[in-house]
Amino acid sequence: MTHPTTAPPPRTHLDNGGSAPLHPLAREALAQALADGWADPRRLHAEGRRAAALLEGAREAVATVLGARPPEVRFTPSHTASLHAAVAQVSRARRRQGRDVVVAATERAATLHAAEHAARQADGRRVVVPVDGVARVDVEGFVAALGADGAALAALQHANGEVGTVQPLDVVHAAAREHGVPLLVDAGSSVGHLAVPHAWDVLAADPADWGGPAGVGVLAVRHRTRTAPVGPEDPDPWAPGGVSVPLAFAAAVSLQAVEADRVAQDARRRRLVERIRSVVAGVPDVEVVGDPDDRLPHVVTFSFLYVDGEALVTELDRAGFAVGSGSACTAATLEPSHVLAAMGVLTHGNVRVALDRSTTDDDVERFLAVLPGAVARVRAMLGADGL
Amino acid sequence: MTHPTTAPPPRTHLDNGGSAPLHPLAREALAQALADGWADPRRLHAEGRRAAALLEGAREAVATVLGARPPEVRFTPSHTASLHAAVAQVSRARRRQGRDVVVAATERAATLHAAEHAARQADGRRVVVPVDGVARVDVEGFVAALGADGAALAALQHANGEVGTVQPLDVVHAAAREHGVPLLVDAGSSVGHLAVPHAWDVLAADPADWGGPAGVGVLAVRHRTRTAPVGPEDPDPWAPGGVSVPLAFAAAVSLQAVEADRVAQDARRRRLVERIRSVVAGVPDVEVVGDPDDRLPHVVTFSFLYVDGEALVTELDRAGFAVGSGSACTAATLEPSHVLAAMGVLTHGNVRVALDRSTTDDDVERFLAVLPGAVARVRAMLGADGL
Repeated sequence: MTHPTTAPPPRTHLDNGGSAPLHPLAREALAQALADGWADPRRLHAEGRRAAALLEGAREAVATVLGARPPEVRFTPSHTASLHAAVAQVSRARRRQGRDVVVAATERAATLHAAEHAARQADGRRVVVPVDGVARVDVEGFVAALGADGAALAALQHANGEVGTVQPLDVVHAAAREHGVPLLVDAGSSVGHLAVPHAWDVLAADPADWGGPAGVGVLAVRHRTRTAPVGPEDPDPWAPGGVSVPLAFAAAVSLQAVEADRVAQDARRRRLVERIRSVVAGVPDVEVVGDPDDRLPHVVTFSFLYVDGEALVTELDRAGFAVGSGSACTAATLEPSHVLAAMGVLTHGNVRVALDRSTTDDDVERFLAVLPGAVARVRAMLGADGL
Repeated sequence: MTHPTTAPPPRTHLDNGGSAPLHPLAREALAQALADGWADPRRLHAEGRRAAALLEGAREAVATVLGARPPEVRFTPSHTASLHAAVAQVSRARRRQGRDVVVAATERAATLHAAEHAARQADGRRVVVPVDGVARVDVEGFVAALGADGAALAALQHANGEVGTVQPLDVVHAAAREHGVPLLVDAGSSVGHLAVPHAWDVLAADPADWGGPAGVGVLAVRHRTRTAPVGPEDPDPWAPGGVSVPLAFAAAVSLQAVEADRVAQDARRRRLVERIRSVVAGVPDVEVVGDPDDRLPHVVTFSFLYVDGEALVTELDRAGFAVGSGSACTAATLEPSHVLAAMGVLTHGNVRVALDRSTTDDDVERFLAVLPGAVARVRAMLGADGL
């Protein structure tokens, strides 16, 4: 005898920026590497050498995709740890040349905080360059900051993960090279989605963003870029105590996999994003934010007037859809997004949709079918219905 | 038609200190948590809340075993990261009370380096207290250092992972409390093998040592112990960017599992270690090091005269046995062990056997059958046979 049951509503995850479900090949690679690569890769025996070989294989695979040499690639404990370590170690090595750290206003919080910390350690300043209304950095301002006396390091994202806008790396990197200032490029929202940029001295990429596992970060440091460790002595100043070999291996395998069908996924997801933009534009009192063209292929962000972002995320969650919000991005920091604030756009009522490789046309149509109703319900709850 | 094949020699892993194969339950837990807990636990939607619930469940399970309250437990990227963060953050919070860091000479390299770094940051000193011939700390010297003006923090291992010796934590912690100096206890080689100690203010434990995954560390900080972050601002100063929820969950599940049969494993592995000690004592010119009684149940270390440790590890590896060596512990640092040096015992020709829960009587007998011959062959190669 079976009990009557209510099937749980199907879940559709549209919050795939920074934490996507594991790519199927990442899951297989992880299982394989847990069996073969559990040992300490620094040990001399066969088990240790096998783990070391897996780690080296992962390094080579990542290097090939990033356009780097294998010794230039480091694994770290997280994307945040990558950004912290890169800012600290490059600026420490450059202290004689400069004490200031130049950043765009829409850099990730980890970069902004690391820049503040490094500048304070050096008795220097964090120089924050503004962005325009689509989040594109003020290039003249950035180049001027690079040329000013005292710049130890500059940081500029490849693409912003909240609103999708791509930054003009080529012109900024050319200016940085001219002034001898290393450029840290946070490609944590773009690697696996856009072609990997060439214009960088230090490049940070985030496996959790491309369907690899959380708990490991990827950092490439050009051979010519000097670094100096800042913490206690350790054989690996980028990941004291080492990283998980299985996670690094799974990160590399999934990177190869997503790079292999990146162009097809780009076209498919751009088309879905266009479809979302066209339907959302029909909802009253909405603003789609970020650059409409030069952007990540899978991210679209919009802000609704008279709506609380957290309430809308919760309402969509009840309907079976997981989305992000710049105004309630995490449970820990219920603060308006510094990215939206820097752009001068609405910081409330914000929703970000980030499509996974596995997101289907049907997923998107079902989402678009419930979105206007969800917005209306939240507006009604807030008594803003008749405004 | 089948080709005649030579079966690869069976492998027996007897280097299970700090990196053991995954416990079967850890593997199951990891697979479950990869399916259920891949999302960012700080997100507000159902996927994020489920990851957060797994992480909180892991925290509660670890807290129960460690005798701590759940909010006292932090997950870090590695055991080394735990020790670095604990030394840095506790000593930073205590700068008004003291600038020196007191350590035993046989602490892990990560602790020694973190103490050196923290003392230098504070313009203080690292005070290294000597040990005796079995690696037991000079208690009078340690207590005197605790009572001297300027101690910000003291660190003492529960048990040494290289030679097994247990430290007198109770008397040292009583003195530390009397002088108001927080005591950091590195239990990275003992949790899962010995009863968890009670005498600590900060306790570090290593999942990779008990059959959990590498890539995550465990740290418990008593509520009364003050800490101050030292790096860039981050929601989690113990693990900037967060840790892998699946790894933390697998660490917790495997800790519960090994704690459940710890007493039975203690008796079984002590008996096997006694058997190894008795056979090894029959090899000419050998010294068994560490305390013969008050020690880890699964670790035994011996040094052979006229033998190079690295050569012996390699010879045993060829015969199918993975062991560690204090004189060739890692491929990265081919330096004599600072632990053996501090004890004043032979630093060359050193072999450490660390038995896994899965190590059988037969594994040990096969190892003991090949060990004397391997030692003789290495001695012959070195021309020391006739000495």
